Amino acid sequence: MRLAELSERSGVSTATIKYYLREGLLPPGHQINATTAEYDEEHLRRLRLVRAMIQVGRVPVGKVREVLGHVDDDSLGSAMRLGAAMWALPQVPEPDEDDEYVQAARQEVGTLLDRLGWENAKQLTSISPSYRSLVVTVAALRRLGYDFGAELLMPYAELMYRTAVLDLDNMEAYSSQEEERIEFAILGAILNEPALQALHRLAQEEETTRRYGFE
Amino acid sequence: MRLAELSERSGVSTATIKYYLREGLLPPGHQINATTAEYDEEHLRRLRLVRAMIQVGRVPVGKVREVLGHVDDDSLGSAMRLGAAMWALPQVPEPDEDDEYVQAARQEVGTLLDRLGWENAKQLTSISPSYRSLVVTVAALRRLGYDFGAELLMPYAELMYRTAVLDLDNMEAYSSQEEERIEFAILGAILNEPALQALHRLAQEEETTRRYGFE
Repeated sequence: MRLAELSERSGVSTATIKYYLREGLLPPGHQINATTAEYDEEHLRRLRLVRAMIQVGRVPVGKVREVLGHVDDDSLGSAMRLGAAMWALPQVPEPDEDDEYVQAARQEVGTLLDRLGWENAKQLTSISPSYRSLVVTVAALRRLGYDFGAELLMPYAELMYRTAVLDLDNMEAYSSQEEERIEFAILGAILNEPALQALHRLAQEEETTRRYGFE
Repeated sequence: MRLAELSERSGVSTATIKYYLREGLLPPGHQINATTAEYDEEHLRRLRLVRAMIQVGRVPVGKVREVLGHVDDDSLGSAMRLGAAMWALPQVPEPDEDDEYVQAARQEVGTLLDRLGWENAKQLTSISPSYRSLVVTVAALRRLGYDFGAELLMPYAELMYRTAVLDLDNMEAYSSQEEERIEFAILGAILNEPALQALHRLAQEEETTRRYGFE
């Protein structure tokens, strides 16, 4: 397809597509003569992903380039390729290791992972931004004087595990091609998370009004 | 307790506490003479909540004041007081009603609520920011060409419902006093959500490596 059709099918303006091409977020089209290039379904798919990251996820252009670099790096195995792409998404800052609340939070999260039997996640604690993010949040709550630890988190973690199983089932159903699967997972992290959060709050409203009525 | 002790027990500097007092985010202490005021446990609890909203949740000071106004408004019934406080938290912009994707998204979310039997949530669609937020996200995904609708969301919504039941159980266990319960729920929305998101990603890492190994 030509640029105009790519624009129409994606709902992204030609000026913006040209900008993404210049920035290397989209691979160049197949040049058919000096002024015309052809684009295919893969361009469309990639364009949608880039658009979702920038417009809905508000991921900076430099980060988008970094994430896509990992998606396209077929020197890595499946899990690492996915991990590297997800981890390049914006993350929380490093926790302060001298902080007593950070130390307590690490202990609580460690206990949680033990009880859950998440052996693989335990092996990833030194590099995983999700682990770091959980530690930072637990530390913030403990610093404020809330007793927030393994016991409270346990049933939530079990529900989130079932959510992750759904995510991977959906990803596997979406495509058998590795690059497409990884793109789908990134999209999930960016757009599914706001959807999950909205569903969670809607469910809270439903349950609150069931328990206490509409007054 | 005096200001110094309030500062020490909360980990918030006296200068910051004075700023919160001036901004009306914290009720004044009980003046015992011209230069000294006494603070109680209620001040400490409120201070922790304000701190969590501003520092961890990055809620603007004006919004914090608005949220607290609803928490303290005992002219409202339980569910509405909670709802008003939650809904004053920063939210997504209004969807564009003329947009065909927004219309399709409303239909999908409507089907979802029907299938779930969330009758109360359905009654709140005209005012609920969570509903709006879900519609906006579903519309964004559909605009990008992803088939994202009631069927895909259904099992997620069921898991999020179980998460909401946990939230309310925890809230009820935390306190029998209404104002404290509402504060706890706000704190949950601000700090529990990052924790849930981190748990979700950790669970994804665990499940990904279980399925595909560490390569």
